[in-house]
Amino acid sequence: MSMSKQMHLGAFMRPVSLHTGAWRYPGSAPDANFSFSHLKRFAQTLEAAKFDAFFMADHLAVLNMPVEALKRSHTVTSFEPFTLLSALAAVTERIGLVATASTTFDAPYHIARRFASLDHISDGRAGWNIVTTSNPDAALNFGLDEHVEHGERYCRAREFFDVVTGLWDSFADDAFLRDQESGLFFDPERMHVLDHHGPSLNVRGPLNIARPPQGWPVIVQAGQSEPGRQLAAETAEVIFAAPRDLAGGQELFADIKGRQDALGRSRDHLKILPAAFIVLGDTIAEAKAKRALLDGLVHFESGIASLSIALGLDASGFDLDAPLPRDLPDTNASKTGRQQVLKLAETEGLTVRQLAQRYGGYSGLAFVGTPESVADEMETWIDAEGSDGFNVVFPYLPQGLDDVAHRLVPELQRRGRFRTAYDGTTLRDHLGLPRPDNRFFPTR
Amino acid sequence: MSMSKQMHLGAFMRPVSLHTGAWRYPGSAPDANFSFSHLKRFAQTLEAAKFDAFFMADHLAVLNMPVEALKRSHTVTSFEPFTLLSALAAVTERIGLVATASTTFDAPYHIARRFASLDHISDGRAGWNIVTTSNPDAALNFGLDEHVEHGERYCRAREFFDVVTGLWDSFADDAFLRDQESGLFFDPERMHVLDHHGPSLNVRGPLNIARPPQGWPVIVQAGQSEPGRQLAAETAEVIFAAPRDLAGGQELFADIKGRQDALGRSRDHLKILPAAFIVLGDTIAEAKAKRALLDGLVHFESGIASLSIALGLDASGFDLDAPLPRDLPDTNASKTGRQQVLKLAETEGLTVRQLAQRYGGYSGLAFVGTPESVADEMETWIDAEGSDGFNVVFPYLPQGLDDVAHRLVPELQRRGRFRTAYDGTTLRDHLGLPRPDNRFFPTR
Repeated sequence: MSMSKQMHLGAFMRPVSLHTGAWRYPGSAPDANFSFSHLKRFAQTLEAAKFDAFFMADHLAVLNMPVEALKRSHTVTSFEPFTLLSALAAVTERIGLVATASTTFDAPYHIARRFASLDHISDGRAGWNIVTTSNPDAALNFGLDEHVEHGERYCRAREFFDVVTGLWDSFADDAFLRDQESGLFFDPERMHVLDHHGPSLNVRGPLNIARPPQGWPVIVQAGQSEPGRQLAAETAEVIFAAPRDLAGGQELFADIKGRQDALGRSRDHLKILPAAFIVLGDTIAEAKAKRALLDGLVHFESGIASLSIALGLDASGFDLDAPLPRDLPDTNASKTGRQQVLKLAETEGLTVRQLAQRYGGYSGLAFVGTPESVADEMETWIDAEGSDGFNVVFPYLPQGLDDVAHRLVPELQRRGRFRTAYDGTTLRDHLGLPRPDNRFFPTR
Repeated sequence: MSMSKQMHLGAFMRPVSLHTGAWRYPGSAPDANFSFSHLKRFAQTLEAAKFDAFFMADHLAVLNMPVEALKRSHTVTSFEPFTLLSALAAVTERIGLVATASTTFDAPYHIARRFASLDHISDGRAGWNIVTTSNPDAALNFGLDEHVEHGERYCRAREFFDVVTGLWDSFADDAFLRDQESGLFFDPERMHVLDHHGPSLNVRGPLNIARPPQGWPVIVQAGQSEPGRQLAAETAEVIFAAPRDLAGGQELFADIKGRQDALGRSRDHLKILPAAFIVLGDTIAEAKAKRALLDGLVHFESGIASLSIALGLDASGFDLDAPLPRDLPDTNASKTGRQQVLKLAETEGLTVRQLAQRYGGYSGLAFVGTPESVADEMETWIDAEGSDGFNVVFPYLPQGLDDVAHRLVPELQRRGRFRTAYDGTTLRDHLGLPRPDNRFFPTR
């Protein structure tokens, strides 16, 4: 009997959900943004379900949407990722802990140090989601009048990655002798001073922390642009992708794994995990009704703002209970974005109001159905090389998370597609990733 | 019966102790720098003893001493404070958690966000030890060739404090309505956009986190210079001081409280807590012997380097088993520092070798004796206006900490000098500090 390909599951978390209507859903915890007890319960439930990782989404600004939408949304104020994930490390034992950190608005010494520290505290469960922060409102919180340009952000990101990984390698794994007899605490010959001088960064080192248990925390990236894809193929170990359908997943999968082939890098050493919004019901109709209820809780002011952004024009004048007008004027908006709106409107037969609520809520890849039908879809993705697993987005909490943990995961386990126990202890173990060699003190 | 003045106790922690010989002391845990289980046990023991706060010392560099001393020391590599204290927040319930963060090498948006997050996770137990980072080696880890000059660091620190506290006040305490019926999550009229433009910093805001439970985390400072003292009198709520004797403590106490009087600030709203190194024994002679054993574990190479720095000249050529030569050549070293060495050598009758080991270990204020004799000394300090309590430095761990928790604290409690239970839940409650009003949304 041949073994089916296993999938990896991450949880892409905001405390109240990413969906902007979720805080109004029956049974939700609208105060979870600042309630650690809720987050602790979520992480422990995901760990009992053997998830690979808990992944905390992040922002570096509040003013990233019009105030009419902002005041309706629970998504922009919450815990800072390092403090939250460190606290969760103390009350979990196996689940991976992935934090987002920006290469544009922080110093590599701080970033290297915090991830190394989280990796030590969690005994090897940390992951770094490298972002360059595309939100121009963030720049204004860090003393910059204009946002750093895209190409420059990526140049700095590449150099930043080299510096951070170099700092993690400051000490050989065997540097700390702690020889109480002779009084030698560590061997200075096994300490490397990085002394980096580059176009964007000057960092001496060494880092004031021992090499992380995983060697390096797991490297996660989300960039979908051309430089983002190349950086990921070279350096990422997990890609947090956002394809809208299987064809999009397959395109990304083939492209990234092809780039790895060209670089001589094993395909197994990078896992592609698209975000997937999962709504479960006893029947497909019930699951669809739950989603419709949830979308209906997106306030119209919030939804119409999001739809207008996606279309690149003010959609508030359209007949709200009719389909989108056929002939929309040309604008500067991205053609791809607009085509996605039109395709979605047609496929699901949505009115302008429903489209607005979908865009104001969550408009990415979604699996909506029974545990069996959703498991079927996920298997199809894995077998058709659409992905190596998923980063699950929960529609509402705690129920949407409990449904996945208690109903979908057991179905995937019955099918032999998902672990029933953790084999190892580190996030690298869960993901099947090798421990990187120390570049200054190679093992051989 | 009049009530004796109560004292406050913080624990000034490094995982293996601040004393550089501690990792070689019998029963020590030399691997505690990266062992969270040890730190968890320490924090829980201190909480059971009703300590006000757990205070994590910090460095931003490794290369802050000659390599001959460095390689003997366990003090420069350890957890990063935010990740450690957040993890400890999840496994403690009442003890305060104070982290050091630099105004010279970090961004106010990050600092405001992390302390607010720690305060939310811990339900109001965070404190910020504001430092300007005097170590020139740190600058090299953050892209600066030359260290920022002292006056400039303090100007930036003052502005940084205003920005961070302004960001904490971004939302009124009642801003988050979470009205599920109307769909209004927060009231934008109760959100303040800081829009700060100053000589050192430009920060828009608002902070992407609700106001901390304490309003502001407790503000701690250690600066002893003239601008440091003035900044502390204006803004600090705890001073982490380093007087060497009671006269020094009294001078600082009178100076700071006098500055508060001049500012019209209540003396009760700032607690002065000197670092105190405490070694306990069944007899005073036994305690002294323990300290001598500990000092004797400071490697000579490490000690002589520290003594040479304190004297401003190479001390390695002196007769090591004789007293210091009487006529030392003049140098550029600080006169105060040299006088302290001479005074200590004379008072305790130490040889050059013993002086070196004292300076390589811990040379600040120390209480060495029985629980009764040490409690006597501490009472004298409190009653003579030398301090409002102490930040205890443990000579070796875990034994030195357990001795204080299980032998000294009960003695102080018997004398009515220290709490037997926490009255409140926040660090402000423990320290008797008021909750700051929101400057943009005053309660009256």
